[in-house]
Amino acid sequence: MSLIVQKYGGTSVGSLDRIRAVAEKVMAVRGEGHRVVVVVSAMSGETNRLIDLARAIDPVPSPRELDVLLSTGEQVTIALLSMALESRGCPARSYTGGQVHILTDSAFTKARILEIDHRKILKDLDEGRVVVVAGFQGVDAEGNITTLGRGGSDTTAVALAAALKADECQIYTDVDGVYTTDPRIVPRARRLDRVTFEEMLEMASLGAKVLQIRSVEFAHKYGVRLRVLSSFEAGEGTLITSEEEVMEHALISGIAFSRDEAKLTLRGVPDRPGVAFEILAPIGRANIEVDMIVQNVGTDGLTDFTFTVHRNDYEQALKVLQKTAAELGARDVLGDKQIVKVSLVGVGMRSHAGIASRMFGALAREGINIEMISTSEIKVSVVIDEKYLELAVRTLHSEFGLDAAA
Amino acid sequence: MSLIVQKYGGTSVGSLDRIRAVAEKVMAVRGEGHRVVVVVSAMSGETNRLIDLARAIDPVPSPRELDVLLSTGEQVTIALLSMALESRGCPARSYTGGQVHILTDSAFTKARILEIDHRKILKDLDEGRVVVVAGFQGVDAEGNITTLGRGGSDTTAVALAAALKADECQIYTDVDGVYTTDPRIVPRARRLDRVTFEEMLEMASLGAKVLQIRSVEFAHKYGVRLRVLSSFEAGEGTLITSEEEVMEHALISGIAFSRDEAKLTLRGVPDRPGVAFEILAPIGRANIEVDMIVQNVGTDGLTDFTFTVHRNDYEQALKVLQKTAAELGARDVLGDKQIVKVSLVGVGMRSHAGIASRMFGALAREGINIEMISTSEIKVSVVIDEKYLELAVRTLHSEFGLDAAA
Repeated sequence: MSLIVQKYGGTSVGSLDRIRAVAEKVMAVRGEGHRVVVVVSAMSGETNRLIDLARAIDPVPSPRELDVLLSTGEQVTIALLSMALESRGCPARSYTGGQVHILTDSAFTKARILEIDHRKILKDLDEGRVVVVAGFQGVDAEGNITTLGRGGSDTTAVALAAALKADECQIYTDVDGVYTTDPRIVPRARRLDRVTFEEMLEMASLGAKVLQIRSVEFAHKYGVRLRVLSSFEAGEGTLITSEEEVMEHALISGIAFSRDEAKLTLRGVPDRPGVAFEILAPIGRANIEVDMIVQNVGTDGLTDFTFTVHRNDYEQALKVLQKTAAELGARDVLGDKQIVKVSLVGVGMRSHAGIASRMFGALAREGINIEMISTSEIKVSVVIDEKYLELAVRTLHSEFGLDAAA
Repeated sequence: MSLIVQKYGGTSVGSLDRIRAVAEKVMAVRGEGHRVVVVVSAMSGETNRLIDLARAIDPVPSPRELDVLLSTGEQVTIALLSMALESRGCPARSYTGGQVHILTDSAFTKARILEIDHRKILKDLDEGRVVVVAGFQGVDAEGNITTLGRGGSDTTAVALAAALKADECQIYTDVDGVYTTDPRIVPRARRLDRVTFEEMLEMASLGAKVLQIRSVEFAHKYGVRLRVLSSFEAGEGTLITSEEEVMEHALISGIAFSRDEAKLTLRGVPDRPGVAFEILAPIGRANIEVDMIVQNVGTDGLTDFTFTVHRNDYEQALKVLQKTAAELGARDVLGDKQIVKVSLVGVGMRSHAGIASRMFGALAREGINIEMISTSEIKVSVVIDEKYLELAVRTLHSEFGLDAAA
């Protein structure tokens, strides 16, 4: 008899009919002999409705009170789902974050989970109940209601699965798993049966928005087997797990990409120790995150320095950099917002040389110029002109054998 | 510096504008140097919306889960009101029933308050904050969310006032106080400045629905000065307090009435000890509450027995009584649904004889036949034909000098 934690997001509980469907799903799993804990989000639209009420009262509402307000969204769902289960003869009990003491720090609207008291839940499971827990919320040490920020319900589910030593944490969503790349760009993209935590983290941070990154990190840290499934279709979904459990590694698991990139270059800066710090420190002070960084080998004691930022931060970064350029006596500042990042991700590449060069060769054959390169143990990223995005993703998807059988 | 507990009902917080207006009102009282605790209901309509959701899931939803659901209504209001106060520079903090540990029994949907932990509230007041508490809700000893039933926010306010030893508990509502009778029937009805708990209880139970009876009982028991005021108009409202504080007693404080009455008579029953029990026991077993009871002096060893019930229970009571009549060999059963009860209420009548006869004389002069009479220390009630209701109330209102100056 396994213990399974299931999480259903806002779309999955977005109407009374969908809540009823979730109840049926939960009972089916219970009928197979499993013990089930369910984590739910607010019904879709509800959190935005509450935020609108708050903003109408105060454009910048008190964070403590915002959390008191927003936490009602999940509380409505846990009650309705528990009623639906009970009305079908399935014993169930709902709990708010506070009631099962999901202890967090006091960072209202973006709190972090510190500890969970699982005794109540285990007692209910032992007595044959399904336990329904409000996602996204907790309490701090003083008993104040806190929320974990958008997407926090995934984290609640993983944290509960870790605390309860669950056999699996299933995240039900509106996609049926993790794909080799975005099927809207590559129709022959394949759903992955399994992927490692490391690969999932690289894919998520590179723009594949299936799971909240924090929940993947959490699952990785506590060794929680995580499965992404569709609420609306049958299927096994994708299991995200440790490397040992993914037996046969494909060379490459997927192609991730991000459109939200912009590139800045400072040309002709003095090539001396500490100059990188002098360039990037003011950017950091402006709260702008830097992603890729490249410094070319200098000639004549001068060098060029290039980095990428989120496209939303481009204008501000440009302003900061122009000031720095003047101070350093650099030749000029160049910028480009028409770029994207495309990445190969796969733990398999650790043991295979030549992945990067094979990637560059495939892109070159299509006439795609590579503007920047960055590598880590399990990924190779390139920055290219945004007009080549789809072509590059499709090319690499075939090159590395990811296409589904026609 | 007084400590005041204010309670605002659903209509008073029924929109964002009204919540803003409540914030202004609270700040005005605080500006006069008082410490303020505010109890709020759900925004009007919200509780019904939630009940509709629950009923769509299950016509008879789990009571425990219904309480989890309904308690979100007040939680939304406390957050919004606290935001409104903070946005105006007034330090405020909201608490759910569970957070200030309003401990109740476990009778979901109609729980009773057992105890309140006032330490958090006093600490906040000492630190200069307005404290905003969700009405209508609490937690049981196991930490389950409970609600007190409709109108329970009044009880929350009174219980908090008792626990905090507040100087006054102000109930803001959509009427500006307690009246000598219903102004829709007697346009010259007057607002009472003061009324005793006992009078208020008699008036409330007789149909003057300003305050929930339980909250008046609670205030009486713990000696909480209770004031009913309008949320929408200025004014002193009506103070409900102990007899000692109501210095000059009017003979009669008000005329209460109830339309929901029905009368049943068993004629020609054997006049022997225990027959009243034999008649009423089956009625009690059918869960029907009996109000007034009259047994006439018998002749020929037979007597007539009459009692009143709520009009909704009339048909069922009649059925039960017909069975009893057959068993007892009574002559016949009569019933009448076209009756009403009119009552004089006033602590002043304790010390004045002749109130009842003056009442009967006034009604007789208008040709109104009295069908039943019942008296207690501070009230005289008569049952009359319902067509005379308005005439009787107006007549008595003048007779006992309650009319406002023209």
